[in-house]
Order: sequence, then structure tokens, then C-alpha cells
Amino acid sequence: MNQSIIKYVIGKVMTIVGALMLLPIVTGIIYQEKEAFAYVIVGAASFLAGQLLSRKKPKNTMFYLKEGCVVTALTWILISIIGAIPFVLTGEIPNFIDAMFETSSGFTTTGSSILKNVEALSHTSLIWRSFTHWVGGMGVLVFLLAVIPMSGGSNINLMKAESPGPSVGKLAPKIRNSASILYKIYLGMTVLEIVLLLIAKMPLFDTLCISFGSAGTGGFGVRNDSCGSYTGLQQWITGIFCALFGVNFNFYYYILDREPKKSFKMEEVRTYFCIIFASTFLIFFNILPRFNTVESALRASFFQVSSIITTTGFSSVDFNLWPSFSKVILVALMFVGACAGSTGGGYKVSRLVIAIKTVIKEANSYIHPKSVKKIKMDGECVEHDVLRSINVYTITYLVIFVVSVLLVSIEGKDLVTTFTAVAATYNNIGPGLAAVGPSANFADLSYFSKIVLIFDMLSGRLELFPMLILFHPAVLKDVFLKKKALKATK
Amino acid sequence: MNQSIIKYVIGKVMTIVGALMLLPIVTGIIYQEKEAFAYVIVGAASFLAGQLLSRKKPKNTMFYLKEGCVVTALTWILISIIGAIPFVLTGEIPNFIDAMFETSSGFTTTGSSILKNVEALSHTSLIWRSFTHWVGGMGVLVFLLAVIPMSGGSNINLMKAESPGPSVGKLAPKIRNSASILYKIYLGMTVLEIVLLLIAKMPLFDTLCISFGSAGTGGFGVRNDSCGSYTGLQQWITGIFCALFGVNFNFYYYILDREPKKSFKMEEVRTYFCIIFASTFLIFFNILPRFNTVESALRASFFQVSSIITTTGFSSVDFNLWPSFSKVILVALMFVGACAGSTGGGYKVSRLVIAIKTVIKEANSYIHPKSVKKIKMDGECVEHDVLRSINVYTITYLVIFVVSVLLVSIEGKDLVTTFTAVAATYNNIGPGLAAVGPSANFADLSYFSKIVLIFDMLSGRLELFPMLILFHPAVLKDVFLKKKALKATK
Repeated sequence: MNQSIIKYVIGKVMTIVGALMLLPIVTGIIYQEKEAFAYVIVGAASFLAGQLLSRKKPKNTMFYLKEGCVVTALTWILISIIGAIPFVLTGEIPNFIDAMFETSSGFTTTGSSILKNVEALSHTSLIWRSFTHWVGGMGVLVFLLAVIPMSGGSNINLMKAESPGPSVGKLAPKIRNSASILYKIYLGMTVLEIVLLLIAKMPLFDTLCISFGSAGTGGFGVRNDSCGSYTGLQQWITGIFCALFGVNFNFYYYILDREPKKSFKMEEVRTYFCIIFASTFLIFFNILPRFNTVESALRASFFQVSSIITTTGFSSVDFNLWPSFSKVILVALMFVGACAGSTGGGYKVSRLVIAIKTVIKEANSYIHPKSVKKIKMDGECVEHDVLRSINVYTITYLVIFVVSVLLVSIEGKDLVTTFTAVAATYNNIGPGLAAVGPSANFADLSYFSKIVLIFDMLSGRLELFPMLILFHPAVLKDVFLKKKALKATK
Repeated sequence: MNQSIIKYVIGKVMTIVGALMLLPIVTGIIYQEKEAFAYVIVGAASFLAGQLLSRKKPKNTMFYLKEGCVVTALTWILISIIGAIPFVLTGEIPNFIDAMFETSSGFTTTGSSILKNVEALSHTSLIWRSFTHWVGGMGVLVFLLAVIPMSGGSNINLMKAESPGPSVGKLAPKIRNSASILYKIYLGMTVLEIVLLLIAKMPLFDTLCISFGSAGTGGFGVRNDSCGSYTGLQQWITGIFCALFGVNFNFYYYILDREPKKSFKMEEVRTYFCIIFASTFLIFFNILPRFNTVESALRASFFQVSSIITTTGFSSVDFNLWPSFSKVILVALMFVGACAGSTGGGYKVSRLVIAIKTVIKEANSYIHPKSVKKIKMDGECVEHDVLRSINVYTITYLVIFVVSVLLVSIEGKDLVTTFTAVAATYNNIGPGLAAVGPSANFADLSYFSKIVLIFDMLSGRLELFPMLILFHPAVLKDVFLKKKALKATK
């Protein structure tokens, strides 16, 4: 294992995280909150330590898939830890595991919270909490790739480990350009949402936090009722932007590249919108009798569908009180997730499309045993390797899910709570149902369950394998055995 | 499609079902119950109609996979319908959908019941109900293969469509011999259970019904509390036999064939017993405080684990009242299911073993990208085709599951009821949790939900594809377009 490059990248990440804390620091200064001090200390420490770690650029900058996975998993664990420290220092979340749950939930764009009263938080911490969504949405390593030149040509392994979806679309021939294009689109859309929400008369502070949350498909709100107290127009804008951030970013790239035809041919994106429309439609008729106006029922159903399928997790009403049919649809959407190549989590629409095509192909092969049709996506044959990796992903996904439910069930919460707590964190959504529903939170779970759920959030965000690889015996030995480390750095 | 052979096989099946009704008829005569008349009428009609349909043996007895699937699906729908008629005629289950639910549940060895008071049923109907488990356990077409000579050599396609598990083990070079060996082992073990239960002083009638239920891994009882009122010894015997009938029958064949080493090398069987021991152990400690003696806690946990993993579905206590941890284990076992090549349902242990090996192989490939290790089972490489079919099976399994939950949720029962009603029928178990738990039943579900669950029971028993193929547009056209049918029979 190339230890020196891992150390180098980790150093860079710490530098960036330190720099990112400027936003809460500035916010703290504006609002004259003493909580800003905690961010100054942690930010400066992280920045300096990072500089120290990455002062020497290693000669060998080659990255293999193994290093890509390890560095990604370590990065995400590390930023969750560093990001949690200010909460502990300010005393706003005194327990470290709780604080780490909150930051992992932030960076992984889950949005599950252990806070019972969000409004008691300082503006400094609130904006940091929402900002983690924005950073985590596109990925901190993708950011790194966009700003630091790295040679070797195998940086694709870093991007592969951090980007959601079965295959990484290289937008530009150079990884650095791809990463930078992604971040530009991301930034542009976020700014657009901020502007529109300001026009809709949302206060600036809320606007920033809600935009960070929907851009990263996170879901932390700044009010105790999430988005319930915003106006209809503000909810429509937020809901629509959630849906837009769940679209495969290649879609926007093709449009910018003046190839809109290519955009609208993308099967994944078309399926994604079909699912949103169908689910909204079904839930709308199911909940209509509970609402006074057609508009409010339509808004509530669209908002919730958009928020859940993109794994954002904002809520405008308490959907835990809706009829079972609507709840089952929402739970199913939790697993479907957004498009690959978006900021959303879950199983991903493209995997679903390919998986269902596999089933149809199998059924046809019973009837026409001699036909050899290949599975196609966007008009092109899906490679055997992609099919295999989707199959393996599906099974791994299920195994981790079942084991997690089993571990969380030890503390003895009811079945719906246990099941949806795992579903909501693993798929990076946010709220579940019952005791972890939209009007409740994760505070009352045991620390053991919280640690399991932190693992689930990170696994879900990094698409399982980086976290599994990190805990592979061979890798643990490689990373923690000092002797080898010394040899490698020499 | 070879329509004449389908007609011929269906005719034979109807003859057999007619003949099978002799058992309830004899029982009715012994107990002097008027319900026996209904069985006389239906049995005779089915027998005669069957003789009529199969009087001409078709010249072309070739069977392809498509015909195998269609004939299997049609057979199972048909026997569920014929088997249901006596219940309606006797007025014991006046509604036809309810009666068909009960018989499908019987033949598919599910054991979910819509009867609120089982003890009100006549002995005639009770024994028929339990007998359907025994018939369905090993499969009616496998029985057909064992008794009727069929040429063509592609009868494996019939057995393949009806036998549980990812690959059909041909025990003997000739299919007919394999089928007959399976039925002999099955009969022998059933007789052994009957004898042991009689020694343990269970009444003869109960002994027969409980043995039919555990042999077929069905789960219909003859008392309202299932197996709750039997003595400890009787429960131990029943529990152990459930576990034994969940073992891959190749295991017994090798022993009979004086190759016990081969038996004990079977990874699937070893894993199966490991899962049983581990689950019993965990549940035992979880429920111990609720029991007076260690023996009763151990018995309850073993009985329930054995009953659920084999998808039998007997209950000795109301496990719906157990702590969440135990309930989650049981729900997980519902999906695991028994061994391939046994009478049990579910996903099957062998599929699970191979699936987990796939995950481990994938993780290793991240670390040693160049290694090309094949997945092995019982020391032999697993063929690529088997792997692919398991992957496709997994995805199909999930798709049907999710769609079913969605459809059943329409009537608005709570989530646990909805989810476990589908899980329990789809995996051919019997009781679920909450409103369909062991102390309740399926009576209060809507007819729409019951029809969905009938489909699930049949799909689960036939391992998905035969039922899907039957409803494939191409097949529907082929089966129901008269013109083609005439051409084929000419």
C-alpha cells in the first residue's frame, strides 16, 4: 500500500476542512456569538496539522483502487470526527458520539438528527451543520481533485470511490476538468436556489441553510418543524430544487455542452421523473381527504416524494400520520434513491432500471431460450462487468442492511422504528417512521445503535465497498502495522 | 408450444388430485361426517375429467423449459382451485376466494389460514387441509414423474420448475428414479415422525395432521393454538422433524447410498444447522427472563427457529409478544428459508451461502485486483450460469416482494402487518406478526389482498419464474389462442 500518498491526501483534506470552518466563523462574527471561538480553534488546528502532514509531496502519486477506497473511507471518518469537535467544545452537543452522529449525518447528506430542539443552536453551529451537507453532497475528494493537480492518471480511483452510481462518467478527458465542471454546475444551481428563495422572501440565513441542505440532498433544517412553517411558494421552490439535485449531473453537462438531445435521451433521468410523477400522483389521491385544498395536498405529496426519493429528508408535514399505502410508497422510495452521478443516495435509479431489465431478459430467455439479446441502457449495451457489479452491490447492500437491523434491534425499539431507522440512515435520507419519524429524532437511541447507524451512513454515502475494504483484515494490517508504514515512506 | 403434452399432464394431475381425496373420504366415513359427500363428488369429478383429458397419450412428449414452467404454474393454480371446492360445498368456508386462499396456502406449504376457529372444522376437511401440505411439499409433478413413465428425456424441465433451489441435483441417471427416491425418503421420514409422535402419546388424528404439516413444512395445525397445547416431548419431536425436513434431501440420499462423508461435507447443510443453532442461542437468551424454566425457554426458541427457518410456521407460543431483537431474527429467518432440495421455502440457504461468497470475493478483488479465484461450493467451482441465475433470482424476488407490499398496503393495515403478511406468504411460512401474527389469522384482509397473497404463495413455492412466465404476454397468447391450440393438437 502506498502509505505516503494516503498521508498526503489526508493532510490536504484536513487543510480543506480547516478552511471550510471560515464560514461558521464569519457567521459567528456577524451574529456576535461566542461559539465562533470553538470553530476558530478547531479550524486552525485542522488547517495546521493538515499543512504539516502534506508538506512533502510524495514521489509516487500512483493510486490503485485499494488506496482509493482506504483514503476515501479514512477521509470521511476523519472529517466526521473533526467536524464534530466544535459541537462538543461549545457544549451544544456535549456527548462526542452524538456530535459525531450529527456530523456524519451532515457530511453523508443524511440529515438524521439527534437534536430535540434545533432552534436552540447558535447560528454559527446551524450554518456549519447545513454546510456539511453542501460539502458532502458533491464530495470532499472530488473537490480536492478539482483544485489540486495530481499526476499518475489513476485518480479516477479516488473519484470512483467517492462518486455515487454504478459507473463514473468521465465528463472531460482529464479527471481534474471533470471534477471542476461538476463543482461549477453544483455551485451555479445552489446560487440559483438561494436567489429564488430570497425572491420568495425567505430570510437570508434560512435561505443559505435550506439551499445547502437541498443541494447536498441532506435535510437538516433550521426550524423544529423542518420546512413546515415556510410558505407554499418557498416549499415549492425547495421541493423542485431537491428533485433537480437528484438528477444525474451529466444531464446538466450535456445541456451546457449544447447537446440537449443527449440529455433528454438519458433513460435514468426519464425513469426518475416518471417515478416522481407516479408516486406524487398515488400519494396525492391517498391523502387528499386529509387536506383542505387540492394545492396543499399536491404540494405535500410532491414535496415529500421529492424529498424522500432524492434522500434529502426535509418534511413539510408529519408523513408518519399518513395512511399505510402512502407510507409504503415512501419507504420504497427510500430504497430507490436518486440518480447516479447526483448528490443523492440510495440504491440509485440506474441500478434499478438495469436490475429490472435483467429480470425481463431472464423471463424472455425462458420463452426464447436461443435468443441472445444484450441489456441496453441509453441505446448502448451494458457491459458484463457493470451487470456483475450491480448484482454484487445489491447483495452486499442487503447483507449490510439485515445485519444493521439486527444490531439496532438489540435495544428493543419497535419494529417500524428499528427498520426505518436503518433504512433512513443507510440510504442517507434523514427521518424514518414511528419513533424516528419526521416529528421525532434519533436522540433516544442507544449509543451502540448510533455507532451502527454512523457506519451505515458512511457505507451508504460511499456505496458500501470503501468502508468494507477499510475493515478488511489485510488492509487493517497494512494501515496499522508501523513497520510496513516506515518502509513505505522511506 | 406443445399444447397436447400440457393437456395430457394436466389430465394426469386432475386424476391424481381426485385419487388423493380418498383420504378425506375414508376419514369422513370413519368419523361418520356428512362433509365426506363433498369430497366424493369433487374427487370423482376431478378423477373422471382427468381421465378424459389424458386418455390420448400425445406422440410428441418433448418438454422444453417454457412448457415446463407453464404446465407447473397451471397445475398449481388448478389444484388450488379443485382443492378449494369441497370447502365451499360443505359450507365450512363459504367464500371461494377464502377457500382458495386456504388451499393454495396448503399446497404451497405456507400454512397461513383465514379460519378463526380451526377446531370447528370437520375431521374430513381438517385432514384434507393438512394432507395438501404433504402433497405440495415434495411436489405433485415430481410425484407424477415418479409414477408415470415419460419419454423424451427433457422431463428435467418439469422437475426443474417444481423443485426448490438454484440447481436440481439429479440423484439417479433417470429422472423417474430420482423422483421415486425422493418420494421414498419423504414417505419414510413421515412415517418415522408419525410413529414417534404416537409413542409420545399424541392422538392418532393429530399425529397424522402434524406430521403432514411438518413433512411438507406447511404449518396448518388442528388446534386453535397451533402446537401450544402439546406436551414438551411432542413439541421437541415436531420441532426436530421440521428441522430435518428442511435439510437438502441429497443429504439423506448420500447416507442411504452409504456415502455419509459426502453428506457431512455439504456446505449448505452445515450452514443451515449453524444458523439454527446460532439463532436458537440468541433468541434463548433474549426470551429467557419471560420463561419459568430453562427447558421451556430453550424449547420455545428452538421450536420457533426451526418452524420459521424451514418455513413451516407452527407456533408453540405467541412470538408476536417477544422482544424486537427476537422478532427481527425471526423475520430474517423468514427470508433465509430452508435448504434447496428440501420441502421448505424462502430464499434458500445455498443461495445465501453463494451470495455471501460473492460479496467476499468482490471485497478481495479490491485488494488483490489481479487474483482470479472462482467461487466454490462443496469444493467444486460454482458455474457462471448458476451465479447469474442467483443474482437474477435475488432481484426478481425483491421486485415481486416490493410490488406485493405496495398492493397489500392499499387496504391500509399497519406497516408491520402489511410487511409480514407478504413476507410470511411469499416465503411460504404461515403466520406473520401483528394482525397476522400466530394468535391471529388472515381472515380480516380484503379479498384484493388475499388474491395478491395467493399469487405470492404460488410464486414463492414455484420459485418465481413459472408464475411470471405464465403471465408473460407471449405465453398468454399461446395458451389461450384457440387456433394455435388446434394446430398443435392436429
